[in-house]
Amino acid sequence: MSDTLTLGQDRYSRRIAELGLQLPRPVISPTAKIEGYSLAGEWLHVSGQVPQWAGDFRFIGKVGEQFTIETGQQAAHLCALNVLSWAHIALQGDLGRIKKLVRVKGYVSATPDLADVHQVVNGASQLFLDVLGDQGRHARTAIGVAVMPFNVAVEVEATLWVAAAQ
Amino acid sequence: MSDTLTLGQDRYSRRIAELGLQLPRPVISPTAKIEGYSLAGEWLHVSGQVPQWAGDFRFIGKVGEQFTIETGQQAAHLCALNVLSWAHIALQGDLGRIKKLVRVKGYVSATPDLADVHQVVNGASQLFLDVLGDQGRHARTAIGVAVMPFNVAVEVEATLWVAAAQ
Amino acid sequence: MSDTLTLGQDRYSRRIAELGLQLPRPVISPTAKIEGYSLAGEWLHVSGQVPQWAGDFRFIGKVGEQFTIETGQQAAHLCALNVLSWAHIALQGDLGRIKKLVRVKGYVSATPDLADVHQVVNGASQLFLDVLGDQGRHARTAIGVAVMPFNVAVEVEATLWVAAAQ
Repeated sequence: MSDTLTLGQDRYSRRIAELGLQLPRPVISPTAKIEGYSLAGEWLHVSGQVPQWAGDFRFIGKVGEQFTIETGQQAAHLCALNVLSWAHIALQGDLGRIKKLVRVKGYVSATPDLADVHQVVNGASQLFLDVLGDQGRHARTAIGVAVMPFNVAVEVEATLWVAAAQ
Repeated sequence: MSDTLTLGQDRYSRRIAELGLQLPRPVISPTAKIEGYSLAGEWLHVSGQVPQWAGDFRFIGKVGEQFTIETGQQAAHLCALNVLSWAHIALQGDLGRIKKLVRVKGYVSATPDLADVHQVVNGASQLFLDVLGDQGRHARTAIGVAVMPFNVAVEVEATLWVAAAQ
Repeated sequence: MSDTLTLGQDRYSRRIAELGLQLPRPVISPTAKIEGYSLAGEWLHVSGQVPQWAGDFRFIGKVGEQFTIETGQQAAHLCALNVLSWAHIALQGDLGRIKKLVRVKGYVSATPDLADVHQVVNGASQLFLDVLGDQGRHARTAIGVAVMPFNVAVEVEATLWVAAAQ
């Protein structure tokens, strides 16, 4: 199975391709008790995404210790790609069903003096804006946390407003 | 007043009984400024639940310090029972009105090296799956936090999609 | 431009005035990648608000270290004022469109022994109750976090159920 998803022909999928990006195939451990997303009516809730590329966990460590702000932004960017991957799966390949990115939460594994946690999460927000344009403008909360699953540096979750399935 | 709620006859309540479980009566301090839940249309938001049994706070401490992963899972299980207790109250005893468990957040008071925070939260997710079956499959975020109300080890919040009141 | 917003004539705006309060004009850095809120149908999501007065960041530090619980409550109160400021803007000055405050999250930059994080967040909850009355009764989660944007002591986010625009 390919490490990446096959992009559709909707405007957001085409935009992803134009940006030279690919969507990694999101992987959940067979022992996990959770789903990558849940879809309830017009609301798509994507689970907190860690920076992985098709099962390969990256950016293990803390921002302010092993990683700079800039590297943390790359981690956040990869988390956000996985958010879009789950949206692709939830919406059966048609990202054009996204009406609006509503809310983003960014959690940063940070040293206690890292006052720039929000700048780290900008790595995710920028990707959402690049891909979704005005529909990607979102409410957000960014906080620094003690420790994250798998010791990753960043975790990003999102809630989207989507067109219900026909 | 009993320490437990009287279960209804809907399928999820019957399932709770089949599992040999009871729902603790959830308690909020008289000085608290919050509700256990809020119900808005078809959306039931349950407040972050700490591991308590009818007012008796349990699992005081940190996972990785006072508690193992397994004990942390028990704490998460108890938090999740309280989530169901509030759902029972919000839905006037009829858990059958639950259409879907949409989103779960698990917060773990963890030592900074505890890379398995998600496994702790599995203690909550497993209960939701056991009771709600396919309707219990949920999006989730798990993070490790610095400190929690009452110094408890775990806190679990949930959002559910429910049938609106008649 | 004034540091405060011009209050409307709806009942909640009048209540704010009766309480002797003003709504600070919320400020987002020109380099920020986020919005203060997003409005999707009947759901208003307000971004995590830090304690600022029209761009002036206050309460820089940790509760339990630089700040007492009581001072932390003042910080939470200021965060909550900014939540209402964004609601004012999102609802085009008519807070009367608020049907219900649904969910509040309070994040406290706390020392690891601060078991009273929930009491800090009460500073926000109390304001919501004072202004919105029964419609301000909300589900809530309070946690202590490692570090916050700009090293502020408290961050508060909220989700509201509102009457859709005509």
